[in-house]
This record gives sequence, C-alpha cells and structure tokens, in this order.
Amino acid sequence: MTQNIYDDPEFFEGYSRLGRSVHGLEGAPEWPSLRALLPDLTGKRVVDLGCGFGWFCRWARENGAAQVLGLDVSENMLARARAVTADEAVSYERADLEHLELPDASFDLAYSSLVLHYITDLPRLLATVHRALVPGGQFTFSMEHPILMAPMHPGWTMDGQGRKTWPVDSYQMEGPRVTNWLAEGVVKQHRTIGTTLNLLIRSGFAITHVEEWGPTDAQVAASPMLAEERERPMFLLVSARRG
Amino acid sequence: MTQNIYDDPEFFEGYSRLGRSVHGLEGAPEWPSLRALLPDLTGKRVVDLGCGFGWFCRWARENGAAQVLGLDVSENMLARARAVTADEAVSYERADLEHLELPDASFDLAYSSLVLHYITDLPRLLATVHRALVPGGQFTFSMEHPILMAPMHPGWTMDGQGRKTWPVDSYQMEGPRVTNWLAEGVVKQHRTIGTTLNLLIRSGFAITHVEEWGPTDAQVAASPMLAEERERPMFLLVSARRG
Repeated sequence: MTQNIYDDPEFFEGYSRLGRSVHGLEGAPEWPSLRALLPDLTGKRVVDLGCGFGWFCRWARENGAAQVLGLDVSENMLARARAVTADEAVSYERADLEHLELPDASFDLAYSSLVLHYITDLPRLLATVHRALVPGGQFTFSMEHPILMAPMHPGWTMDGQGRKTWPVDSYQMEGPRVTNWLAEGVVKQHRTIGTTLNLLIRSGFAITHVEEWGPTDAQVAASPMLAEERERPMFLLVSARRG
Repeated sequence: MTQNIYDDPEFFEGYSRLGRSVHGLEGAPEWPSLRALLPDLTGKRVVDLGCGFGWFCRWARENGAAQVLGLDVSENMLARARAVTADEAVSYERADLEHLELPDASFDLAYSSLVLHYITDLPRLLATVHRALVPGGQFTFSMEHPILMAPMHPGWTMDGQGRKTWPVDSYQMEGPRVTNWLAEGVVKQHRTIGTTLNLLIRSGFAITHVEEWGPTDAQVAASPMLAEERERPMFLLVSARRG
C-alpha cells in the first residue's frame, strides 16, 4: 500500500501549517495555472485523487459540479475534510491509490494535485482513471517536476558568481527518492517527463496541455521567496483527454 | 533569417570533426532511440529539416523511402551532401527554416535532428510542417533538452562530495541563449518542454511519444564519457502525428 505519510503525526503537523493547508487553493501558487486548465464544471461528476482537506472538492461543488468524490489514504485528512463539508453532493472515501477501483465511465473530470509522484504503480492508476472517465472526459493533474525530484541530494547552491542554481543529477535513474520533507524518509517516485507522458498516451489519453509551472511577476512581487522558482521547473501540470 | 552558423568557417571546421559528422548517424548516441520512433519508410515521402551532410536522407532512401528531400540553410553542408549522394530520389535544397514554404499534404514523414532549438518562429514552422504532411503523417524530431539550454552560464560542477551535477538556472526565462559551442556567439532559443509540446498540440499534432534521451548501459560501457549524460536530460525526442 502507499506510504501513508499524511498519518505520520510529525508530517501531518508540518503539512497542516503549509500555506496550501491554511489558506486552501489560494495558498498554492500553482493553483491559478491549474484552474485555468479545468473545464466548466457545471453539472459535471468529479473525482479528486488525493483530496487532502477537501479544498478542491468544495471548490468544484461551489463552481457547479453535480457530484464530487474525494479520495485519500489519510484518515486524518478525510476527517478534517468531512468536518468542514456540509454538502450531500460531496463525499469522501478512504482509498489507497495503488489499488484504486472506480466504476466505469462514471466521471467527467479526474483531478489530482501533487500526488502522482508518490505512486509506484502509475500504469495501473492511469488505466483505472481512463476507464473511470466518460469518453471525452478530462484528467488534469499536478505533480512535482522530475527536475525537482531527480537529485539524490537536492538543494539550491550558489555558483562562483553568487548566482542561485538548482544542481541536477541522476535524472536518468528513475525510481524511489527518499527525502526529509516535513518528516524523515518520505519516499517519492522519480520518473522523467517522457515516461509520465508516454504512460498517459499508452493508457489511451490524448495529451492536451503540458506546463512546467513557474511564478508570474505578480506572484514574485507579492511573495519574493517565489523568485527562486523562476530558476527551475517546480511543478508539472498536465491535462489529457480520454479519447 | 536563421543565424547560419554552419557557414561560419570556424564552426563548420569544428562541426565537421564531431563524431556525428565523421561517422554519420552511428556517431550520434541518440540515433538508436530516434530511429526506434520512425515508421516503416517503404514507399514514403520524407522531408528532413536541417539535413546537414545528408546522412539521414541517404539512410531513409536505403530503408525504402520513395522520395527524400533534404533542406538546409548551409551551402557548405548541402555541397557536401550532394557530393556524396548519387540517387535521383534524394534531393537537397537550400532553405531558411524560418521562412520555409512546402507544398500541402506532400510528405508522409517530416524529420529534424537537433535543429528546432535554433528556430525563432517555431509556431510558423510547425504550422508549415503540419500542412506539408498528409493526414496521419508523422513528425519526429530531436532537439537540445531545455535543461541543457536554460542555464545562463552552463557547465558541470562538482558538489561538496565530489558528485557531478548540472546546475540549472533561468529555466522559466524563455528566449535566446548565446553559447560558445564550436564558435563564438551561437544563438539558441530556450523554450520549456511544455511550450514546445503545447505549440505542437495547438498546431494540430497529436503527441505520440516524448523521450528525454540518456545513454544505455552498453553505450556507457563503449564510451565512458557518456556516463555524465545519465545525470541530466541531454536531448528531447518527440514524435507527433498529424490528426
């Protein structure tokens, strides 16, 4: 089963203090770019893979979705999501995305924010999502960019002239990366962009948009610490359509 | 017009000594991966954008292509290509890819090796290639990977533990990069992978394969200096189909 770091007390405590946990979607700098990829949700059936506190599920419902299903492996997160959602059209279920089962052709949109880089058996999950979408249905997701994930010892460095650089190594060595982000021993799965896109294509998806997120000038002006994210690609945003 | 570095004597001299110039396709480590993306060429009409010495044009003909057109901006390269090609089904023409005109629906395969990163008006070229292909026709190309191209002061560095890393900066700043590769002041156009793929999609192409080339174990064993290319993505290989 998926490493359930979100039910690790230390990780959960740290995660709960992040901007995106406290302020929801608006606390995530990539959200405006991700939102721009979404279709009109009016009357749509939506599934959120890794729904966390349910911010996106509630947003989707407020923006017209008919039914929203939020899935997460973390009981902690689901408990909080349920506590702040009072809407019968939004439901939350515990699910291990490594072994996910979904009914066929039952969703118009599948959404996933910063979760797929934890998945070991990505081909299986993509096949499940493909089957669960109606023909023409859309899958939009973000994940950590592999340039962020590849290095064995990640960290910004200054070059001889005091310029900030993000040193890349081991890009071609796909597989687990163990980092100490919020807690010790968080395991992510490094895949090249090519691998992720080819898995989508082979699952029957048509790629409709690929974006390597970076902050806008306005975002950097409002949050100067985001400036470093101009130097490297931080997140990968992808939209694909079930053919 | 395109910067025609290949007719710069210093650049041409250096380029002519590269493995891929002396040994042709087999001297290019990414060739086996690129070749694997190509369709059966029997009876096909092929255009090579930036044909150089014509290695690929002759290979395509030897592998069954009915007609091959090689295009290049460099008179030096075309002269040598013509000198070593004795086949009426292979022709070479001088063309500035920034202002290329091709007849509609006249090719089954468009191919381009390590040229698109020099192109300023990529949307125009992609629209031209799209129109020039028959419906269902294929466009397969390689280009320098943007992670290679992005840094303002590119170069390998050693981290504190003596590990080789490729420091990335300025990834989100698209536009010209001036390098001194074989000659001074070679200008390339940095674009993110997302930008290149989205331009293809908006031109009407369906992405069928994306590969961030790295050497195989056998290649590293045969050419140990290739080992560093496991640390970073060096080339981007893409196949797309005209819908």
